[in-house]
Amino acid sequence: MLPEVPVAQGVWPLPQKINQFAERYPLSPREFTFRYANNSLAQSGCSVLDTAFKRYLPLVFPGYSVGKENGRDPLAGHPSSRVNPFILVVRMRESDCDGYPDAESKEDYSLSVSKGGGLLAAGTVWGALRGLESFSQLVYQDDHNTFYINKTKIEDFPRFQYRGILLDTSRHFLPIQTILKTLDAMAYSKLNVFHWHIVDDPSFPYQSRSFPHLSNQGAFHPVLGKGPAQSAHPLLPWRPPDGTLGPVNPAVGSSYQFMTHLLKEIRDVFPDSYIHLGGDEVDFSCWKSNPEVRMFMSKMGFRSDYTKLQAFYMESLMNITAALNKTSIVWQEVFDYHEKPKALSVVEVWMGGCYLCEVRKVTRAGVRVILASPWYLDLPGPTHDWSRYYNVRPLAFTGSEQQKQLVIGGEVCVWGEYVDATNLAPMLWPRASAAAERLWSDEEQTCSASEAFPRLAQFRCRLLRRGVQAGPLSVGHCRHEYQEEPPARTVLRMAARQVDHALLSPQTALCVPRTSTQNRRKLPPSTASVWQSGDHRNQGRAVNDQPV
Amino acid sequence: MLPEVPVAQGVWPLPQKINQFAERYPLSPREFTFRYANNSLAQSGCSVLDTAFKRYLPLVFPGYSVGKENGRDPLAGHPSSRVNPFILVVRMRESDCDGYPDAESKEDYSLSVSKGGGLLAAGTVWGALRGLESFSQLVYQDDHNTFYINKTKIEDFPRFQYRGILLDTSRHFLPIQTILKTLDAMAYSKLNVFHWHIVDDPSFPYQSRSFPHLSNQGAFHPVLGKGPAQSAHPLLPWRPPDGTLGPVNPAVGSSYQFMTHLLKEIRDVFPDSYIHLGGDEVDFSCWKSNPEVRMFMSKMGFRSDYTKLQAFYMESLMNITAALNKTSIVWQEVFDYHEKPKALSVVEVWMGGCYLCEVRKVTRAGVRVILASPWYLDLPGPTHDWSRYYNVRPLAFTGSEQQKQLVIGGEVCVWGEYVDATNLAPMLWPRASAAAERLWSDEEQTCSASEAFPRLAQFRCRLLRRGVQAGPLSVGHCRHEYQEEPPARTVLRMAARQVDHALLSPQTALCVPRTSTQNRRKLPPSTASVWQSGDHRNQGRAVNDQPV
Repeated sequence: MLPEVPVAQGVWPLPQKINQFAERYPLSPREFTFRYANNSLAQSGCSVLDTAFKRYLPLVFPGYSVGKENGRDPLAGHPSSRVNPFILVVRMRESDCDGYPDAESKEDYSLSVSKGGGLLAAGTVWGALRGLESFSQLVYQDDHNTFYINKTKIEDFPRFQYRGILLDTSRHFLPIQTILKTLDAMAYSKLNVFHWHIVDDPSFPYQSRSFPHLSNQGAFHPVLGKGPAQSAHPLLPWRPPDGTLGPVNPAVGSSYQFMTHLLKEIRDVFPDSYIHLGGDEVDFSCWKSNPEVRMFMSKMGFRSDYTKLQAFYMESLMNITAALNKTSIVWQEVFDYHEKPKALSVVEVWMGGCYLCEVRKVTRAGVRVILASPWYLDLPGPTHDWSRYYNVRPLAFTGSEQQKQLVIGGEVCVWGEYVDATNLAPMLWPRASAAAERLWSDEEQTCSASEAFPRLAQFRCRLLRRGVQAGPLSVGHCRHEYQEEPPARTVLRMAARQVDHALLSPQTALCVPRTSTQNRRKLPPSTASVWQSGDHRNQGRAVNDQPV
Repeated sequence: MLPEVPVAQGVWPLPQKINQFAERYPLSPREFTFRYANNSLAQSGCSVLDTAFKRYLPLVFPGYSVGKENGRDPLAGHPSSRVNPFILVVRMRESDCDGYPDAESKEDYSLSVSKGGGLLAAGTVWGALRGLESFSQLVYQDDHNTFYINKTKIEDFPRFQYRGILLDTSRHFLPIQTILKTLDAMAYSKLNVFHWHIVDDPSFPYQSRSFPHLSNQGAFHPVLGKGPAQSAHPLLPWRPPDGTLGPVNPAVGSSYQFMTHLLKEIRDVFPDSYIHLGGDEVDFSCWKSNPEVRMFMSKMGFRSDYTKLQAFYMESLMNITAALNKTSIVWQEVFDYHEKPKALSVVEVWMGGCYLCEVRKVTRAGVRVILASPWYLDLPGPTHDWSRYYNVRPLAFTGSEQQKQLVIGGEVCVWGEYVDATNLAPMLWPRASAAAERLWSDEEQTCSASEAFPRLAQFRCRLLRRGVQAGPLSVGHCRHEYQEEPPARTVLRMAARQVDHALLSPQTALCVPRTSTQNRRKLPPSTASVWQSGDHRNQGRAVNDQPV
């Protein structure tokens, strides 16, 4: 458990090696500087880091904003308000500052904090970003709001290279601010891949230069869209396939010409190394209903096996992608249907059941794997079910060392049927952070959800303070949430005028003062909830659904 | 289904009698007035209505705010921008404008809209508020943003008198703004009881004048609270009862003196007719461990039946409450344990299983019932499960007409273990609105969730526009959500700098333009999702979990 006064803060996700000491140093934003080491290959002018320094100052010192000198000094009125300068020196072993990250980018860093300053050493700027995040999480405030950092040594690197989140902008519109806020929160959890499921059946919001009609006709639009109800009216009849609607027609050359053209544009627009070609859950009824397709089938000798047709089509897409020097990712069905599975680059495993069986199969074929199955966050489940996403063991299958090497990482998926800007954040955070620690940290050191809990609870408060609406993990509060509020009755008076009448439940008045303190100090939530109406929520299910 | 151009808007919850006609009239905020009828018993100066008129003008005309004349005229540039004045005349049959509502307050109203104006007639100001809400929901905008209202006649009154929401401020702190926003949203759904579960074991935020130490020692506090993790640390040991902690000690007179004093204060602070005394899930182990209590048990001849002791204690509380001219509500256990159940005033049924069996039992004893069991919204479940809360039949038990009369209403409960300001709104709305229609509207006319769906989807968009973060019901969008955004690549470029690399999934590019339009127009979400990766979310569960 945490001692009465926090002598040190946890870092989430847990670094590979971290030593913290009781010795601690007060910090003041006014006396704090980022600086490049003289022998650093990157120096002032390194765009990625220069901007990161600006971004992290307010993250290291919440409530303090640059230039806002009239903002209250966090040390004002505090006895030890004389604070020594602190310099975080950054030393880069490489000079590349302007490139884009790719699948091979290294992220290792080392960080040491001692009296008067710290040293952050990294190979790439991406590693330096991870180190800055860890540093920001080492700083905390005591009850007088003085900032402190403890003497600390960290050696850190990610367990998996690919740590992603899939957002779906086809089923619901997501404002850019919502997407950017998610990217910030990903950086706080050291997640490094944004998988943008930008288009799908329900809408096509990607604005193509070459084919503007795709989004003009396919995106949600007030006039085209004609109000909310129609976009998903459960009573509207489903029209059976008639050969005019459905997946791409793989029987005509124009399909491939179109796809080549579109993928060329995508290569130019997006600097990234991967393109996800999909290929999951293709419904064959449309193809079956199309005479042209049936003719093509027999010509190719596929008989009535439409999985062969899909394999044929996907292989062509993968070839086009390879010719564009991009790495293609496909959903697991493409592997299952394929006759030369070794030809695939990366397979994403998403189906439930024994997903590790599929991981074993794919890696045995020598193909790289991204694991998504255990991290479908849009499936129903209360926010506190974070341990479900934490207690995943991606390599717990029987296979050679080479096979394990082929598991390049995992991905949290948030499909959009029932997700939009109103509920995305509390659905993602801090549950995605649980997955993030599984993908970054050493499994041996992070095998206990109950040991992780206080650190995650602390991290969740940090997320809130950084403006990420992370959902609650359990009963309780964050220090920063406390502020003077007018007495309860004020609210209720106002209430009574808007709503008709109101009730008050003082049901446990007498026994509370002592027990409540007791609960906050000693009792696990489920135990507390056994006492009084807390157990209400267990109406109809198991009593103990606490994180452990 | 809704026609291409909406000729009329649904009202949620559905009025008892509503006739809408195709004839419609353009409206302009500049040409719109609320006015008291000459023969109205309430006139200008009636505080509740005067403020309601101010509150509703921007609700009737979203985007328009009083005095903000530089705000864009919703009619600008529109051909028919000459709009006739429209006056909503309000006629009150009673003059009481300054009292507080109580359990007996009537809420019936009638509303008729025709060329040039409308008439809203009501007995009480509370009925008038319901009528104003219905009126505001009749106004809509066409694709040119012109406001319209159709010729309409409404006769309306609630099916149940008690339609509540329970919020729990003991397990998590809820900012006043969050509570007030919830009250606004309740008014939009014609919910009329705010059940404030203000205190419980985890914390005691009610600030008592007579006993300030209750909140001083019992409320969440940064210094007392000592950080977030400790308030709910699953590893901390649970201390077995030792007679010093637990429910009120019913064996000593001082308990009853204290309770009398506290309830007196509560009567003075809260003007409302009900006080909820709780009495659920009392754990007896603490009493059993207390020699004083055991002695009292034998003196009273309770032997070892602690339910008798609880009944004795609760009866005393109910007597104190009655002496203060307040009506007491208790959870169902108090009824189950009580020897003279007829003595109870109101029983709230919350347990799962056959809750209607309990309703029958309680009403057979001639005691009033509030039903909560089917409306525990904090239990896990995706937002779109609204039909679960809609398809409830509170009176579907065998019993006399008198028994049915004793069911005074229902309550949506949101216990706070895993709920705070970050996720309250999308958890409550629009699911609580589904319960609201069940409690307000005629069951015969609202027995089909699929018929209700488009109206609820429309209402949810209205909630969003009014600033209530209601969660999505299905795939789609709201008209007002559409706005110009920079092209996709802009976001992704910014993204790539913060997170490492990004992916794009153009998996259904070719077939989308036609199908997506198709989907938005014709396909129910689950059908659409059968086509491509939409079905991802059905990984591991039934395919068809759409609202119907």
